[in-house]
Amino acid sequence: MGEQRTAGEWLARFSEALSAGDVDRVTGLFGEECYWRDLLSMTWNLHTAEGREQVAAMLAGVGRGAWPAELEVTSESEADGVHEAWFTFGNETFTGKGLVRVRDGLAWTILTSAQALRDHPEPSGARRPRGAEHGVNVSTENWLDRRRQRVESYGLDAEPYVLVVGGGQGGIGLAARLGRLGVPTLVIDKHARPGDQWRSRYHSLCLHDPVWYDHMPYLPFPDHWPVFTPKDKMGDWLESYTRVMELDYWTSTEATSATFDADAGSWTVHVTRDGREIVLHPAQLVLATGMSGIPSVPTLPGQDVFQGDQHHSSKHPGGARYVGKKVVVVGSNNSAHDICADLWQNGAEPIMLQRSSTHIVRSDSLMDKVLGPLYSEEAVAAGIDHDTADLVFASIPYKILADFQRPAFDAIREQDKDFYAALEAAGFDLDFGDDDSGLFLKYLRRGSGYYIDIGASELVAKGAIRLVRGQVDHLEEHSVVLTDGTRIEADAVVYATGYGSMNGWAARLISQEVADAVGKCWGLGSDTTKDPGPWEGELRNMWKPTRQDNLWFHGGNLHQSRHYSRYLALQLKARMEGIDTPVYALAETHHLA
Amino acid sequence: MGEQRTAGEWLARFSEALSAGDVDRVTGLFGEECYWRDLLSMTWNLHTAEGREQVAAMLAGVGRGAWPAELEVTSESEADGVHEAWFTFGNETFTGKGLVRVRDGLAWTILTSAQALRDHPEPSGARRPRGAEHGVNVSTENWLDRRRQRVESYGLDAEPYVLVVGGGQGGIGLAARLGRLGVPTLVIDKHARPGDQWRSRYHSLCLHDPVWYDHMPYLPFPDHWPVFTPKDKMGDWLESYTRVMELDYWTSTEATSATFDADAGSWTVHVTRDGREIVLHPAQLVLATGMSGIPSVPTLPGQDVFQGDQHHSSKHPGGARYVGKKVVVVGSNNSAHDICADLWQNGAEPIMLQRSSTHIVRSDSLMDKVLGPLYSEEAVAAGIDHDTADLVFASIPYKILADFQRPAFDAIREQDKDFYAALEAAGFDLDFGDDDSGLFLKYLRRGSGYYIDIGASELVAKGAIRLVRGQVDHLEEHSVVLTDGTRIEADAVVYATGYGSMNGWAARLISQEVADAVGKCWGLGSDTTKDPGPWEGELRNMWKPTRQDNLWFHGGNLHQSRHYSRYLALQLKARMEGIDTPVYALAETHHLA
Repeated sequence: MGEQRTAGEWLARFSEALSAGDVDRVTGLFGEECYWRDLLSMTWNLHTAEGREQVAAMLAGVGRGAWPAELEVTSESEADGVHEAWFTFGNETFTGKGLVRVRDGLAWTILTSAQALRDHPEPSGARRPRGAEHGVNVSTENWLDRRRQRVESYGLDAEPYVLVVGGGQGGIGLAARLGRLGVPTLVIDKHARPGDQWRSRYHSLCLHDPVWYDHMPYLPFPDHWPVFTPKDKMGDWLESYTRVMELDYWTSTEATSATFDADAGSWTVHVTRDGREIVLHPAQLVLATGMSGIPSVPTLPGQDVFQGDQHHSSKHPGGARYVGKKVVVVGSNNSAHDICADLWQNGAEPIMLQRSSTHIVRSDSLMDKVLGPLYSEEAVAAGIDHDTADLVFASIPYKILADFQRPAFDAIREQDKDFYAALEAAGFDLDFGDDDSGLFLKYLRRGSGYYIDIGASELVAKGAIRLVRGQVDHLEEHSVVLTDGTRIEADAVVYATGYGSMNGWAARLISQEVADAVGKCWGLGSDTTKDPGPWEGELRNMWKPTRQDNLWFHGGNLHQSRHYSRYLALQLKARMEGIDTPVYALAETHHLA
Repeated sequence: MGEQRTAGEWLARFSEALSAGDVDRVTGLFGEECYWRDLLSMTWNLHTAEGREQVAAMLAGVGRGAWPAELEVTSESEADGVHEAWFTFGNETFTGKGLVRVRDGLAWTILTSAQALRDHPEPSGARRPRGAEHGVNVSTENWLDRRRQRVESYGLDAEPYVLVVGGGQGGIGLAARLGRLGVPTLVIDKHARPGDQWRSRYHSLCLHDPVWYDHMPYLPFPDHWPVFTPKDKMGDWLESYTRVMELDYWTSTEATSATFDADAGSWTVHVTRDGREIVLHPAQLVLATGMSGIPSVPTLPGQDVFQGDQHHSSKHPGGARYVGKKVVVVGSNNSAHDICADLWQNGAEPIMLQRSSTHIVRSDSLMDKVLGPLYSEEAVAAGIDHDTADLVFASIPYKILADFQRPAFDAIREQDKDFYAALEAAGFDLDFGDDDSGLFLKYLRRGSGYYIDIGASELVAKGAIRLVRGQVDHLEEHSVVLTDGTRIEADAVVYATGYGSMNGWAARLISQEVADAVGKCWGLGSDTTKDPGPWEGELRNMWKPTRQDNLWFHGGNLHQSRHYSRYLALQLKARMEGIDTPVYALAETHHLA
């Protein structure tokens, strides 16, 4: 068509076409290359329709009452020939927010995101509860009595509607949202205190993502919060958050088995709380045990012979135990770098064993070039709070996200060329991802293969962390031997060798059959290294319905947990309320793990 | 003059006159009736200049470098012939915010408030700390190590610059501000946990002020927080706040004595921490032990004869202990009402003994008519956040505050006339303050004499709480006998008889001499009941320099603690930094208690 049309004008036509119920007319407003990403509002799914055909299929596949209506433009802008507009909308079930990008008069990308259930708005602002029950007929139970009773009632005379297994940032953020929505939710976690998920990690750990990216739902950090939160401070924040959000949270509790009764529509979950067996019957089971899944430790000949400590990176006790010792760290991603730096700081001798190429990006550069436009003090000053930023980020379809990211990483590569040259000079094997799209795509596709540099790269470059490239052949009593015959003396070995897929948790807790039915979690099907196709369009199994009824996976970094917990909470609330939730385009299972 | 002039135009002339250094020209811009309230920015004091003469004296009495400069209007409005403008300003020392009201072209009221020390801005937003010390030369101590060392170092190898005695909402809010300003501050409190100041109170207690009024500095409640916070929930919030704001807070600690060494410029304070004696040497001592001071219990004949429980309202254990018992509650203010309602709810028989007239206002009416314009969901929606509301409220000089408040209470009296009639029919002796100005003036003048009704008045009206009017003559074994001979059977007596002045804490901790030098705290000198003159213009001794060097009083409700902790923190920070702090118009002492 080629005609110039602002995004607001486009939305007016879009609205008319939707009102007319005319799929062809709606589809005709989309460009040849086009993407409609719907977060729940139409599809009861996280789904991206790619191309006109899929847009038409999606519209035809959902009820007319699910189509967006009541569109109102809230702001508009234009840059480089792309017209953008934010809008609000409603349909039979939801109120929502959207963002459209229009090129040459036609939609290029559109996001429709559910923000609230029309009949169950969150009790915030003017809808907040009164708290005190003033008046003369009040109960003699006070808030604390009721709170204590509730949290102790589960498994005895009450059941949670949702059981969240795993009380780290993901589980508690989700539980906070469910709590606001009035969904009885119990979080269980094996640790003694909320926040121990962070506290128990290695001594020098700080968050690698900056503060603007890391807020929890509803209660943002105060504005003096450090850019990179130290782990114990994060632990304290999460513990305080759990308390002030009034989450029902059982510490020192592990789930030992779970089975789903399809007829009853509920799970039977055996848990051990402080050594005591309790049986719970939640309707919905959420695995929030970390998007990383179960630690992967390679099986190597000689592991039984090796005389020193051996452990997965997730169990690394901190470098203080290894003063003067040679520690071989197998791997060259985030954990490997952090642990090597920690060892070096503590006077140990770290040896990093790089097995394959790694993407490195300096934290400052990442903040500046990649996150900065959405998550930074400048973004906040420009009126882009983190909720807005989350929607902007969500509005970029995964299919073209690499194209959005690549220029920033090209700029970083140029800006930090001396830094990269020094690493290569030290023998480090660098990459920027299969298609040079950098860190975030690596994270989404495979959840591994990178290090956000907060200092360890300098140690590698100057040899303070000794770098060895190769593959382990076997271990001996006091050394690690590579396939090329290199023998590395070692007092200890740390396996910074990553994690399996989250459906491994389902295998362990429920059954292999269920884990296989659900299939691999995470990854986009991009057909790049460690992310086999076919193309999925969305992250596999995350925050959306799976091939096992009433089983959900929640996780991701703080940004993702914050943003996608909204949609997962709405899905669970709707099911509790008995709202019809026809899922459009439930993903097929292509990979077992 | 009578000419119409917008507040912005007025500010332009004001700015010119100030630049010219011309006191007469500045004063000429003020009306006959005029008030200039300065919070620290010029006076290093909280001071209201009333009338042109005092304005001229204030300008002449402070250095020219302290006059406001760099004035910039940020918004303007007009209503009922009063032109208002918000402005920012700076002087040699501070950056500040102001609000002026112009009538007939001349200033009626002006507020100048210090917001930050020019050379010591708070490390927030773009100035926030980095947190992680990325790089290769980092310490092996992490955040937690440093945190633990610091809090345990006081009295051993470090001294706090400020010691805050009392770790309730006031002490911790102040400590949070001092912490952001980098002032080493230790808070001590006798309770086992932060927040126990609330938790330890009676079972049914909820905050009487609504949520919009109650935010702590820097970390507002999330927007689903109940309107009236239950006491244990408030306790949890304060405990979490203490933790996430990284306050140095010693629990189970009491100060036993304090002496000031004027030569050394520091205090010697003996404290007992978990039973262990520690001597501290802070430069500054803040008493934040509650604006209410030491509980007042009347001495009555027969108290030694009475066979049941007797205690002050602050020690009331809750009604559950008195099921079926007759409990005489002496007093008819907030605590008396709350305790009577609590007794009634628990199946006890409360008898309220009203000794003098009491102001009652329904909580809903107070929220609607009095607080609503500044502290409510509607105010938030209109862009008035609580910090802005605090400044608006502060901009009304105490001298004319009664005139601002009276219409709202007149409206309440009319609206709730049936409510008041029912109370009077039950024999309750009502008032609206000596000059009908209502609750807030009573609070400021005497800190007593009212009840914010959250239900107990209905119990009084319908006789569920038995009301008796009179004065206690003496107690007998099982009764309270009034001066008119009335004998009231009693299994227990609760003295809801209020509190002394805060300088009673100074007498107990430091010396009677210091307490007397400082004199009475709180009250305006309004020459109304329990607030003897002369007129002070500001609350006595609160949040500002006192007649004892390096001794400060902090307290008040959540709104006051939040707002005035800013100025107290700035005063302490300035002294720590060695900034010259000439105090203008240090108040004289007129009353000992």
